[in-house]
Amino acid sequence: MAAEIVNPRSDSSTDHEGPAGAGEPFDPAFALHRGGKMAVQATVPIRDKDDLSLAYTPGVAKVCSAIAERPELVHDYTWKSNVVAVVTDGTAVLGLGDIGAEASLPVMEGKAILFKQFGGVDAVPIALATTDADEIVETVVRLAPSFGGVNLEDISAPRCFEIERKLQERLDIPVFHDDQHGTAVVTLAALRNAAKLTGRTLGELRAVISGAGAAGVAIAKFLLEAGLGDVAVADRKGIVSRDRDDLTPVKRELAELTNKAGLSGSLESALAGADVFIGVSGGTVPEPAVASMAPNSFVFAMANPNPEVHPDVAHKYAAVVATGRSDYPNQINNVLAFPGIFAGALQVRASRITEGMKIAAADALAGVVGDELSAAYVIPSPFDERVAPAVTAAVAAAARAEGVARR
Amino acid sequence: MAAEIVNPRSDSSTDHEGPAGAGEPFDPAFALHRGGKMAVQATVPIRDKDDLSLAYTPGVAKVCSAIAERPELVHDYTWKSNVVAVVTDGTAVLGLGDIGAEASLPVMEGKAILFKQFGGVDAVPIALATTDADEIVETVVRLAPSFGGVNLEDISAPRCFEIERKLQERLDIPVFHDDQHGTAVVTLAALRNAAKLTGRTLGELRAVISGAGAAGVAIAKFLLEAGLGDVAVADRKGIVSRDRDDLTPVKRELAELTNKAGLSGSLESALAGADVFIGVSGGTVPEPAVASMAPNSFVFAMANPNPEVHPDVAHKYAAVVATGRSDYPNQINNVLAFPGIFAGALQVRASRITEGMKIAAADALAGVVGDELSAAYVIPSPFDERVAPAVTAAVAAAARAEGVARR
Repeated sequence: MAAEIVNPRSDSSTDHEGPAGAGEPFDPAFALHRGGKMAVQATVPIRDKDDLSLAYTPGVAKVCSAIAERPELVHDYTWKSNVVAVVTDGTAVLGLGDIGAEASLPVMEGKAILFKQFGGVDAVPIALATTDADEIVETVVRLAPSFGGVNLEDISAPRCFEIERKLQERLDIPVFHDDQHGTAVVTLAALRNAAKLTGRTLGELRAVISGAGAAGVAIAKFLLEAGLGDVAVADRKGIVSRDRDDLTPVKRELAELTNKAGLSGSLESALAGADVFIGVSGGTVPEPAVASMAPNSFVFAMANPNPEVHPDVAHKYAAVVATGRSDYPNQINNVLAFPGIFAGALQVRASRITEGMKIAAADALAGVVGDELSAAYVIPSPFDERVAPAVTAAVAAAARAEGVARR
Repeated sequence: MAAEIVNPRSDSSTDHEGPAGAGEPFDPAFALHRGGKMAVQATVPIRDKDDLSLAYTPGVAKVCSAIAERPELVHDYTWKSNVVAVVTDGTAVLGLGDIGAEASLPVMEGKAILFKQFGGVDAVPIALATTDADEIVETVVRLAPSFGGVNLEDISAPRCFEIERKLQERLDIPVFHDDQHGTAVVTLAALRNAAKLTGRTLGELRAVISGAGAAGVAIAKFLLEAGLGDVAVADRKGIVSRDRDDLTPVKRELAELTNKAGLSGSLESALAGADVFIGVSGGTVPEPAVASMAPNSFVFAMANPNPEVHPDVAHKYAAVVATGRSDYPNQINNVLAFPGIFAGALQVRASRITEGMKIAAADALAGVVGDELSAAYVIPSPFDERVAPAVTAAVAAAARAEGVARR
């Protein structure tokens, strides 16, 4: 069947090396991206008219009628229960910022194939031609019948908070902004193991987070939820504290929730005596500030490609060092979390992803390290095949325990 | 990688035979639909961190930046140029009518896998939680950055006309309501061959269409465009004519365009002396009306599963008989057209699908029959492997000739 069909991708009239086709050096990223990184495949055969009459008319009509009568059957007889929309507006793409919907698509496709590769979850890139929060919400609500979950991606703060909250209120399927919660889950997992390695509880630790965007806000809230002793968050103007009068509503809320110590002033001053540095800002922390941290400190400098503290510098002072890079030990990589979190939520048809499910994911992720725990191994590799099954099972169990599972 | 990952689909706690799991008889359509009919697959490897750093961060950033600078590169470096959104609101699904978005999904998935199987085109089911025409238009406009084309499906008339027109005005990618134009293209192909077989030109033929919904309106306009002598269209109240005062705007336009003969009254009376009957209504035409048609008539009774004229009856009077069913000769099946039409349009990045491209598709489809033409073979089988390549090539060439190709 279709053996001779011309695939539009194979008929490229442009070069296969670089984007310009005009003397640019060969770049393997462009060669790999040629034609995109994903495709759709049928999971049932269509070899002859008998197959066609089952998969399409007239056989399909019975299946449609059954779903019309009993709506929950859509999960059994379509791919809905295994497919996630990866939704962006292209406003906060990697470190590139607001590059627009179409330019964000390579990242969304990458995300989609990571969902498949690591979680067995089908995912579809949906880059929207609007950056208006209400329009994004309305659009995703209208798309929702076709999907089992929504992964929000690379939407800039503070709109990302409002969009996620409104969608969670209106939809009965998981809505998860990975830049917030995926990062927070993996950070907690690494922190649990770092604390274990150094013989401390989370309650004993004081953290300082550099960056009050999507990731910083979510990590701060999540670590407090998980029992961290104290967290202070710094934006470009310094520590987010109640005495500041320049805070957005999101940061005002953060000022209420965080910073029990009542710190104010610069990030550097807040680091004096702190146990944990978490960088999600892209700035640079001066070496003396790192040196001023408490003994046995943890430095999680996650900015990509340039960590806020270079690992070589961090290792002079810290007991555990983690980055966002794959070429150093302890990579804090969201791919450790989101595939298993969605796979677990979809497996039990969870109506949402609760705090308990995220904490279960972090614990499962930390647990994969087990007895091999060391300063250079507080978090598993993205290619550790135990990760996704462990996270999936833990999230599914937590969903059941929390009463949000529907099967 | 991911060898042990639990696939949510494989953990079904319900039965594998019927929808109720409560004594309903085994039905192969339900068994086949279990877990859905499609999946996403990566087309690039993610075996290790080197792969990951090319397909995702940091390598992907270069590709995003290149697209941000030169937006047309999105076609080269993402799957956009080969992926079609199959969009519905679930209001006119098969013969089932308005069954809602989720219940329509099995049909949309079926359509998606036919796109892939027959045209090599990736397609994604998008069933919307709104039936408001303006909301559907806005939603699809916002989705458009992620897709190379939009196939509208099973949206009820007259909203389907307005939605398609507005989307075509606002988007620079093909927007095609298959229930209209796919049906029209395949009908024209069959009609061309039937005319050839009986030694007549299209200009000599007068047709009567039963049904003034999406398919009937589109077929009427398209056959006139292609040069048919005359067409009259009947709705439930009889022939659409200028003297009627109960017509919707779409039917008023139809009354202006069609029915040169100035017929009025019943479908049956209009059939007297007609050369062609085209049924897209689901009603029944009495045998005496069929008997009253001109010699060497054509009966295309396309209602499913019950043709407007049973083929055994039609054969008593007509020179060529076609139906919508796969168990009779000459099946008028949209799958003969839409995969190749989109494949051809996407191949040359056409900004729209013109009348000329549709006529080229019909001619190519008719041409596949070639010298084997007979009364029982005026249209190829959907499983004829020559069909999609022929349609694809003809549509791509027509797009170039008409100046809507962008490569």
